[in-house]
Amino acid sequence: MVPDSVMKSLSVSTPTRIVLLVMDGLGDVRQQGKTPLEAARTPVLDRLAAEGTLGLSDPIASGITPGSGPAHVSLFGYDPIRYQIGRGILEATGIDMKLKPSDVATRGNFASMDAGGLITDRRAGRISTEKNAELVAVMSAAIREVKGVEVILRTVKEHRFVAVFRGAGLDQRVSETDPQVLGKKSIPAAALVPEAQKTAAAVNEFIARANEALKAHHPANTLLLRGFSSPPTIPQMQELYKLKPAAIATYPMYRGLARLVGMSVLPTGETVEDEFQTLKENWDRFDFFFVHVKKTDSYGEDGNFPAKVKVIEEVDRLLPRLLELKPDVLAVTGDHSTPCLLKGHSWHPNPFLLSSPYVRVDETNAFSEAQCARGGLGRFPAEESIALLLANALKLEKFGA
Amino acid sequence: MVPDSVMKSLSVSTPTRIVLLVMDGLGDVRQQGKTPLEAARTPVLDRLAAEGTLGLSDPIASGITPGSGPAHVSLFGYDPIRYQIGRGILEATGIDMKLKPSDVATRGNFASMDAGGLITDRRAGRISTEKNAELVAVMSAAIREVKGVEVILRTVKEHRFVAVFRGAGLDQRVSETDPQVLGKKSIPAAALVPEAQKTAAAVNEFIARANEALKAHHPANTLLLRGFSSPPTIPQMQELYKLKPAAIATYPMYRGLARLVGMSVLPTGETVEDEFQTLKENWDRFDFFFVHVKKTDSYGEDGNFPAKVKVIEEVDRLLPRLLELKPDVLAVTGDHSTPCLLKGHSWHPNPFLLSSPYVRVDETNAFSEAQCARGGLGRFPAEESIALLLANALKLEKFGA
Repeated sequence: MVPDSVMKSLSVSTPTRIVLLVMDGLGDVRQQGKTPLEAARTPVLDRLAAEGTLGLSDPIASGITPGSGPAHVSLFGYDPIRYQIGRGILEATGIDMKLKPSDVATRGNFASMDAGGLITDRRAGRISTEKNAELVAVMSAAIREVKGVEVILRTVKEHRFVAVFRGAGLDQRVSETDPQVLGKKSIPAAALVPEAQKTAAAVNEFIARANEALKAHHPANTLLLRGFSSPPTIPQMQELYKLKPAAIATYPMYRGLARLVGMSVLPTGETVEDEFQTLKENWDRFDFFFVHVKKTDSYGEDGNFPAKVKVIEEVDRLLPRLLELKPDVLAVTGDHSTPCLLKGHSWHPNPFLLSSPYVRVDETNAFSEAQCARGGLGRFPAEESIALLLANALKLEKFGA
Repeated sequence: MVPDSVMKSLSVSTPTRIVLLVMDGLGDVRQQGKTPLEAARTPVLDRLAAEGTLGLSDPIASGITPGSGPAHVSLFGYDPIRYQIGRGILEATGIDMKLKPSDVATRGNFASMDAGGLITDRRAGRISTEKNAELVAVMSAAIREVKGVEVILRTVKEHRFVAVFRGAGLDQRVSETDPQVLGKKSIPAAALVPEAQKTAAAVNEFIARANEALKAHHPANTLLLRGFSSPPTIPQMQELYKLKPAAIATYPMYRGLARLVGMSVLPTGETVEDEFQTLKENWDRFDFFFVHVKKTDSYGEDGNFPAKVKVIEEVDRLLPRLLELKPDVLAVTGDHSTPCLLKGHSWHPNPFLLSSPYVRVDETNAFSEAQCARGGLGRFPAEESIALLLANALKLEKFGA
């Protein structure tokens, strides 16, 4: 990947349109002789593969299994090692919170402590999401600000919530309060650098007042905070690539990740059909569309092979609606692999399909992991995907004379 | 790519000989089902492919279209982002000027200005090359030196010339004088760093005296300068790789690029046949030969598919003469792709053919982009080509014990 400064100097705005269609966790491994992508009936994807070119892209590097954050950061063209997204920020984006650059967000767990202040359950018996919402309301009513710092609390799910500290002079370099083991007290937040002293003091004041507010609410009578983080200072796609980028995603975390790199997030419905309809309705307003399909990953995580196959077939069946819009460049890929066999993210590279008038056609004729392994694009860092899309849309000028 | 210091510590001089045969702009995309390399009848290259191994090499990175400068820097084994060659240097090498490391070269345009000094034509009505030569003679007679700095002027073509400033204490970090738009005055050269103040002063003095000398020569009554640059400080091939390298190229720019990395430039004729004859005549004097065939690129730029096919066939027909010399290692590749469809350089990786007694033979049997995509070398940075050639010539020792 060339440096951002070079990408910025080469990119030009043109009327051509790019669609990056991401089936989350698409890549898989074979079970009973086939991967879900191989088992699925996908005549449209197979035709695109035959007329286009295939390859494999590495989200991070060989053997490295990425979380959704780094996988998308890479797919959007940024170095995932350099631009790491803190747990607190990821959690906040995951519930669609809009953050300011100077905010410090943290992931919170409701927890149980005994009379001596020792932690007896790090998840407060996994209280219900409804109970969580009730307690967040209790805390929010009791604590508006600490030491001049605004505190914003939001329920995530079960025992998980997000706390955002907002105000001047905050710094994310604060240590976690979770002792990680039972029978110990929670650890006071500490400033890891002098600049974070104000933040650590505010956090500790917040915890003291939260303990007071939660006193009568055992098992959720305390909280543990970790992943203190501010939004990354990441160059925006408009500036780097001179794109007008938009994101279409049904899950908040992916909308949040897209927002971090400068995409406009378009309201959409719950289904792939809704997403393609949103794409159509906004076609004239943008020149880059990130369209995110979540369910391939969800079923991979569940180990549900037939359901993953069905999602892929659904996308293939709906693809003609996307193709009717005549994108100049279309890429179909995953952010990372989620093999049903592993029921989780994996290190396997992503199948990658590229369609444009300028691709170098290869000898592949179906969209599958095995055909991608011998495709014309070879194996490349996912971070380079954007440059490839821009080049095929004739949006990159020559480097050097 | 391993660091230069490691390459230097591993390389050894041996009697083996390497030929790097570069067909400029060789890579292409299909039109009516075939690329020029696929359409060409190339029995010799196909046999070499079957007995050797293929791959694809990236001049810079996915999606990045290189100019000839960075493409060759990469092919010669250097990081093309680190070692960037300025416009002035490239222009000077393009007319075979020999430069000193401390020279500052700049590309000049003859231009027109009105009585008020406003630029009315940035190319002086594209005057003829003959007129250019006449005006360069006028300026050269009037201006030998400015502020103790020697000025060397050479005609390039039409309105383009090269000015080289030669003397002690010069620095390339000087701003361009071209206002880029009509109706403005040319911009005085400014030092971008304090070390360049002497150079900027000399440049401005030169412009003032050139304006005086050109006063009566409207439309070419002034000049615009850009791309101030010194030869890059680039490690020489002799030192890094312990090679005795020679370049055989019909076009001056490629001779100039080869000279920058330490190659001896051999006089040759105009045709591929001449070049192969030069190779034969100098076979005993060197152990590394860069042989450059230009016309594949020229016809790619013209979009002339049949002519590009013919050049490839001509090379194939002449190849037995090269093979008679029994090179220990032969690579056939491009510096970048120049698809006829795009009529210009592109981002597509280079087809790469490697022949030596030690290659790991793969399943390919013809030299084409598609077969290269499934070749045993896979896809690799062009910058690593030299290490691959040296290794196959048994010119690299083991790294570590």
